[in-house]
Amino acid sequence: MDVSQVISSINKKNEKGISELYLVACGGSLVDMYPSKYFLESEAKSVVTGLYTANEFVHATPKRLNENSVVIVCSHGGNTPESVEAAKISMELGAQTIGLTHNKDANLLKYSNHAFLYEWGAESDVKNNPMAIILKLAVEVLNVTEEYVYYEAFKDGMEKINEIIKNGEELVEERARVFANRYQKEDLFYVLSSGASYGHAYGFSICSLMEMQWLNAAPIHSGEYFHGPFEVTDKEIPFILMMNEGRTRPLDERAQAFLDKYAEKVEVVDAKELGISKIREEVVEFFNPVLFYSILCVYREALAEVRKHPLETRRYMGKVSY
Amino acid sequence: MDVSQVISSINKKNEKGISELYLVACGGSLVDMYPSKYFLESEAKSVVTGLYTANEFVHATPKRLNENSVVIVCSHGGNTPESVEAAKISMELGAQTIGLTHNKDANLLKYSNHAFLYEWGAESDVKNNPMAIILKLAVEVLNVTEEYVYYEAFKDGMEKINEIIKNGEELVEERARVFANRYQKEDLFYVLSSGASYGHAYGFSICSLMEMQWLNAAPIHSGEYFHGPFEVTDKEIPFILMMNEGRTRPLDERAQAFLDKYAEKVEVVDAKELGISKIREEVVEFFNPVLFYSILCVYREALAEVRKHPLETRRYMGKVSY
Repeated sequence: MDVSQVISSINKKNEKGISELYLVACGGSLVDMYPSKYFLESEAKSVVTGLYTANEFVHATPKRLNENSVVIVCSHGGNTPESVEAAKISMELGAQTIGLTHNKDANLLKYSNHAFLYEWGAESDVKNNPMAIILKLAVEVLNVTEEYVYYEAFKDGMEKINEIIKNGEELVEERARVFANRYQKEDLFYVLSSGASYGHAYGFSICSLMEMQWLNAAPIHSGEYFHGPFEVTDKEIPFILMMNEGRTRPLDERAQAFLDKYAEKVEVVDAKELGISKIREEVVEFFNPVLFYSILCVYREALAEVRKHPLETRRYMGKVSY
Repeated sequence: MDVSQVISSINKKNEKGISELYLVACGGSLVDMYPSKYFLESEAKSVVTGLYTANEFVHATPKRLNENSVVIVCSHGGNTPESVEAAKISMELGAQTIGLTHNKDANLLKYSNHAFLYEWGAESDVKNNPMAIILKLAVEVLNVTEEYVYYEAFKDGMEKINEIIKNGEELVEERARVFANRYQKEDLFYVLSSGASYGHAYGFSICSLMEMQWLNAAPIHSGEYFHGPFEVTDKEIPFILMMNEGRTRPLDERAQAFLDKYAEKVEVVDAKELGISKIREEVVEFFNPVLFYSILCVYREALAEVRKHPLETRRYMGKVSY
């Protein structure tokens, strides 16, 4: 079943239709959900959304959760205990669950009313990756609950984003090598962005830098930067700024102007310059994080290579008990 | 007017009553709103909430905002341009605005249908500080829209928290000095917490450490720690863990158990040990961040003293244009 059929069938199940869409996962999978949270919080007038790290959802389950709620749970390996538990609890409370995983034998599937076994890897079209699938689900939920006026523009954007990314990846390959050479000895990076991409500023920090490179990192919302964080800025601290196309671009531009003046180690990744404007302006902002994920993968690969720290290296995850 | 009267009068204004409570601010004021977001997302079955850094709210205003919405805007100095603009936009869209500030001449007041000039400083009772006022407003909103079953327990907790804090501050004074001496040469701290207190893990990072001490810092949600961030853990990296009493305590305990094993520079601030359990268990979790704010102020003062970097020191904020 495709996303449209899944949401349409759930919406018809109850008289009231869908009233909530909860997004529940851990780490990188939670990051993949942020654009959908941003999309619904921005666009929806009726359906309510909530984004939860799975163990918090399990221990402090929202009282709003009911049989008209949809809970999307995503787990790459499909067996993260707290994610599986979140799906189980949701099902017990009568909500409809949608499980996303890359593992056809996942425990998560036992508690998924609907499931998507997604594609993964550099060869897959991004529209079949979890971030895009979850965003498509969110768009469908909006469209069945109140009709999304830019539904066709969004679908058109989803058809275009993979090629935009492929071009972008080529454009940044040399830049990423220069970046990796220049910053190979750094042990801390701040990652700035806004809007739909703030989740990916968080994701690049915790997954790509902390988990895969054992480097210190922190996300900063471009809008929040001026209200505390900017006081650490000097010519020695490295910043990565992901500049969005769309409504929150002025926030990123303001951060850029400040960094231009007071910092020296600044890497700007600009979605506009990378060609995202081929997508219609009414929906382009929701595609920024899809682009940034793939583009920043080129950067992290270059960094891993020059630092001789392969991206798969772990000391705790899957190796010790916790 | 007190919080109860303000919310009751707003709720009677429209036939439908209050349908949304938006929380909009920047930096430290935004931090003060997080417990209310957590409270409503957890407890409310009807009213919807949203937490926004002001400039994102201004540039990507949620389409849901309407004449049944309440928008709380908080700004200590009351003239933060994007916060004032957020209140102005909200008012223009017909929402009811509540402004909180410490400045009786604030521009924010021009766009506030209701206003609270709050108390500030070590001598004030915390129930008159913005974090508590906003939480009381959120509780009133829940109570008028669907009746909050633990309303009396919450009010009782609000009467008790100031004394709990005073006792706690005495308890940690010597510990804070030891902490400051031990960690005075560190240039990075990770701050962990969960539930209602996650916002304060963020707040201690961006306000107390980054802004006031020019130290690198990042918040980590205790539940997310195991899904990426924990890979940076070693015996050299300092962690501050704020342990909540209440439903998300198991998340903090899990982080503590891991840190006990793999880290050495760990400062635990435990709300339970500091006496918060005098507040009824049905509501205690919402008071953790009120306690943590004051307790961590003792830590940051000790750190500022030993590092000879006064808390008021700024290089950019209010000194250069941005």
